[in-house]
This record gives sequence, structure tokens and C-alpha cells, in this order.
Amino acid sequence: MRATLLYGAGDVRVEDVPDPKLKLPTDAIVRVLRACICGSDLWPYASKPSSDHGDRIGHEFLGVVEETGSEVSGLAPGDVVVAPFLWSDNTCDFCTEGLQPSCRHGGRWGAGDVDGGQGEAVRVPQAAGTLVKLPVGEDTALLPSLLTLSDVFPTGHHCAVTAGVDERTSVTVIGDGAVGLSAVLAARRLGAERIILMGRHTSRTDLGREFGATEVVAERGEEGVAKVRDLSGGDGTHRVLECVGTKPALETAFGVAREGGVISRVGVPQYEEGPMGFETMFFRNITLTGGVAPARAYIDELLPDVLDGKIEPGKVFDRTVGLDEVPDGYRAMADREALKVMVRP
Amino acid sequence: MRATLLYGAGDVRVEDVPDPKLKLPTDAIVRVLRACICGSDLWPYASKPSSDHGDRIGHEFLGVVEETGSEVSGLAPGDVVVAPFLWSDNTCDFCTEGLQPSCRHGGRWGAGDVDGGQGEAVRVPQAAGTLVKLPVGEDTALLPSLLTLSDVFPTGHHCAVTAGVDERTSVTVIGDGAVGLSAVLAARRLGAERIILMGRHTSRTDLGREFGATEVVAERGEEGVAKVRDLSGGDGTHRVLECVGTKPALETAFGVAREGGVISRVGVPQYEEGPMGFETMFFRNITLTGGVAPARAYIDELLPDVLDGKIEPGKVFDRTVGLDEVPDGYRAMADREALKVMVRP
Repeated sequence: MRATLLYGAGDVRVEDVPDPKLKLPTDAIVRVLRACICGSDLWPYASKPSSDHGDRIGHEFLGVVEETGSEVSGLAPGDVVVAPFLWSDNTCDFCTEGLQPSCRHGGRWGAGDVDGGQGEAVRVPQAAGTLVKLPVGEDTALLPSLLTLSDVFPTGHHCAVTAGVDERTSVTVIGDGAVGLSAVLAARRLGAERIILMGRHTSRTDLGREFGATEVVAERGEEGVAKVRDLSGGDGTHRVLECVGTKPALETAFGVAREGGVISRVGVPQYEEGPMGFETMFFRNITLTGGVAPARAYIDELLPDVLDGKIEPGKVFDRTVGLDEVPDGYRAMADREALKVMVRP
Repeated sequence: MRATLLYGAGDVRVEDVPDPKLKLPTDAIVRVLRACICGSDLWPYASKPSSDHGDRIGHEFLGVVEETGSEVSGLAPGDVVVAPFLWSDNTCDFCTEGLQPSCRHGGRWGAGDVDGGQGEAVRVPQAAGTLVKLPVGEDTALLPSLLTLSDVFPTGHHCAVTAGVDERTSVTVIGDGAVGLSAVLAARRLGAERIILMGRHTSRTDLGREFGATEVVAERGEEGVAKVRDLSGGDGTHRVLECVGTKPALETAFGVAREGGVISRVGVPQYEEGPMGFETMFFRNITLTGGVAPARAYIDELLPDVLDGKIEPGKVFDRTVGLDEVPDGYRAMADREALKVMVRP
């Protein structure tokens, strides 16, 4: 089959790789209907040292079960399924608590001998725990929104949930990438009536407004902080959803957080240390939370709203490419030409 | 009157100062029955540059109202009252939310023209908002436990509350100082059944056991982390109450926190930056919370248990000194000879 490999910064290739086969009785084979490129894929795309050996890449996909191992219950060939961006048994203590990224028998797509998601098919470990069966046909128009359940929408949702967003809280969302916009949608869905979106790409912030942002702040850094504070009576907002992952974005988050407030991060942090001192955080009783989203835990809750058409998180996709065009999809996202690229193998 | 002043590291003096007088109609004058020395007083005691000018010090006291300004309601001369370690109007939006340290009209004892608590009397700004009337006489045996409501016990309680301690969570408390022991007592009060106390002073950890600690770990650093992990099935505990404030204590906190867990800090941080990276915090979904306790917000909840004798947080006091002996009280606490020193002016 064909699959995507990353050889180094800017060097994505689509190549022939061995067809996936069941290795363990808990595996399933899924033919990929749709995959996509994640903002977090852009970090290694920007920085991976060049190598002779390509690494399989991609961790968001939706497809059709082709084959199941003897111990896989609840799934059968022909089922349309979505895969969260980490695989997990969904039965260990961490999974039971809704913390699937810490699953005792789970792991990452593309790591070791596990397939990446940006290919024609995937061997899915812990298939019964990982895959969620979708009550739709292969040809449903809902595929884009259903695909967001693999990562980007639950990640925005995780940001809003861990921040404690509700109808009484004012919210700032930092970042107008697909995760930031998903966080806007999630915050609105959780009842927030005041959502300030910090972003400077009008096409994206327009979608942010459609998703529920009530104000947009295009300024960055100190100027952006001052603007958000102006909009919030000088205090900042109760909740800050940091959806970028850079240190400047983190600093902005501390700048726009109201005392007693919560900053939640879901952008993969590109730094090791951050401000935790008396003035920045301690005296102000700021809480810092968030992390890698347990997408698997949230799918059951989010799926009905997608099926009902109440929310359309799939609007974050503004370009669709075939598998052979994936390298151009990476380029387009890295150049901010596309917001989020869907892949139709 | 006599009051305590800090002139520099190791240089505490008790001197004559002007008697407090009402300045604003919202003030009250309180004669101090009991004050005490806080672990946080030891930071300036260890490091303040020497000066010709002494700063008033002390932020924990309990006393008798002597005089009230014309706008002070709910208080009358003769009332026994406790003062939280920050004064506040208790009516602004932050106070109403239970975040009195951020009060729009509040402040610190000993700052500007405000008296410190370690003296014979105190002018109390925003007296109606700040002081809590206690239904006891001046001679009650409960004075030590009631005095802890000014800071140390609500601070331990804040740590446990913000960490989300309840009957389902395992807890590690870092630090066997008076705040750490108060955090143990607070965690037990909130239902925690498993409380590991990290501390190496047996006399203190013995009180910790009396307060509810189920295990004591005397080791520090990596060895301490390994021990706590051993005791918690390799995973660490759900909640970590960091009651020291040093960077090594913070690092220990990250080391003993279970994935998906919460670290709450109430020890005043002696650092500006800390670990917030992918491996330490983000991938593990660790939440960092805590901060300066809204003691005023908690007194109403904690007072009945003290009055009923259900809890005796005053056991943290292991030495009582007169006002003129306060300098020796500082020395004794700094030398770890005394756990917490009460002052009887």
C-alpha cells in the first residue's frame, strides 16, 4: 500500500510500504477513508533532522474495518470507525478514568511497528478499545466532522473542559489554527457567552466567529494582552485556552488571565520551563492545566452533536488532497495557505 | 505601644511605635491577644538587606476590638475577632467569588502605614470585611486553634481544596512545617484516606500522623520520589500538596504526581520559572494550581469544626513567647528548634 513518511524537515514522501497484517489477536485492519494533517505534524516537519530512513506519520483517521483479530469484540468488517490520535485498551485504570493518553497498554501511531494514519490502511492495536464505531455509511457528508473526532475537536474540547469553561466564565482563545477554532466551538458548546479569539488571519477568525467567538483580537504580544484586558474591564478573562504551544503564546496566556483564573494548554509546548513565580502565577491564584487530550474519552459525548448536525467541527478543513498530494498539503499548512488539510487516500 | 520590626536578615527588634488610631471610618483598632510567626516571615528574615529603617512585620493575629470607625458595621468594642493574613473589603467581585487576596480595596499587613500583626495593637483597614467575630471569650482554651484561622490552617485547606482532595484521592504532602501539617489535617478533613507526608523531623511527622498522615517518607529528592512511587504502586498520588516553596520541593511534586493528577502549591515560591514541558507536565496531564489562600473565604467553613473541637489545628504551636521574646522566636523557627511560635503580647 501507499503511506506517508517523513524523512526530515520539509521532506515528506508518499511511498510503497508493506500492507498491514494482523499481528496480535487484539489488532484490526482499517482501510482509511479520510485522514488529515495536524498542526502538531508541522513541528517535526519544521525541524526533523534529515535521515535515510523515513518515519511513518499521521495520527488522525477514519475508515472501514477490513479484518479483526480473534480477540476483538464489538467490531466487524464493514464497520465505519474513527480512531483517536492515540491507541489504548480502554479498560485499564487510566482509561477508565478517562485518561487514555496514559493507558497502560497504549501508544502512538507511527511509533515502532505501528502504522501512521496518513496511508491507505492501518493496523490498529487494541482495536476494541481504540476504535469507535460510527452509525454512518462510507458516503456520508458528515465524514469531515466525524474525522475531527480523532483529534482536533476533542483537543479543543479538552482545553475548554479542563479550563472549566461554562456559562458563567469569560474566555480567551489564543490561536486561530484548527485547534484554536475547535476550542472556540467547544467553549461555545459548553455555554460560554463571551469568547475573545486572538488571531490575525481573517479567514480563520471569520470561522471563529461562526463557531462562537464574540470578539477578535488581531494584535499579539503586549499589545494583544492590552487589548484583551481592555475588552474585559482591565481584568482579563476567567479562562484562557492556549492553543499554540509557543512561549510567547504562553506569556500572552498569563497576561490575559484574570486573577483566580485558569489557563489550559493544548498546543504542544515548544519549551521546557515557564513562568511559575510569585507575581505571575502564585499571588494571582492562576491554575495551569490541560495537556494531551483523551480523545477516546470524549468521542461518546461529542458524537451525537456531530450526528445531529448541531455542530460542524469539520469546517476547519479548507482543503482536501489525495494521498500523493500529501507533501503539498504539508507545505500548504506550513505556509499558512491552508488551515487544515484533509486526505482522501 | 510595642511592635515587631524587621531591620534586615536575622535582625528582628521589638520597639516602641505610635499607638494605632482610626484613620478612616472603615477602620477598627484591635488589641492583640495572640499573634504568631509564619514560615513566610522566615524568607525576609533570612534575606532582607540590612537597613536603618525597620519594617513592621507579622500578618496573623487574633484580638479584641477596642474601637470602630463610623462605617464599621457588625463589630463592637469587646468583640473577640480573628484577622485573615490579608485585609479586604469582602464586598467586591473578587471577594464575593472567594478570592479575597485579589480584593480591589485590600492589602497586606505591615505595608505602607498599615500595622503588622506582631505587636500590641493593630489598626485594621476595611474592618467590617476583614475581621471575623468569634463566639468566645478572651480566656478560651481554643485561642491557639482559632489563631490558626488567620493563615496557616486556611492555607493548608486552600492547598487541599484547590488540589481537589476528596475521599477518592490519594495525597502526598510535601513539607512537615506548620503549613504542611495543616494541609495533612485539611486533606483528612476533606475525606482523604491515604496521605503520605514527606518530612524528616520526627516530632513534626508524629503530629502529622496525629493529623491524619497514613505514611511518612523521610527521604528527599530522587530517593523520596522513589519511595512515594513505591508506596503508590509505581504511579505517584492523585494529589500533591506542595507546602515548602523551594524549587527542589516543586521538582519532588512533579516526581510524585500521578498522571492526570494535580499539584497545588501554597509555599511561597522562591523561584520564577519551573518545569512546564511536554514530558514533565503536558503529556502527563498534570495540573498546577494553588496560590495565596483566601483565608477570609474559608473561616466561615472551618470555624465550626474548631469550636466543636473536631479539629485542633492549634497543635502546630509548640512554643509561646512574650512580645519581647519575638526575636528569639524567629531564631527558634529559623533553626528548626520550634515548629511554630505563638506570641502573647
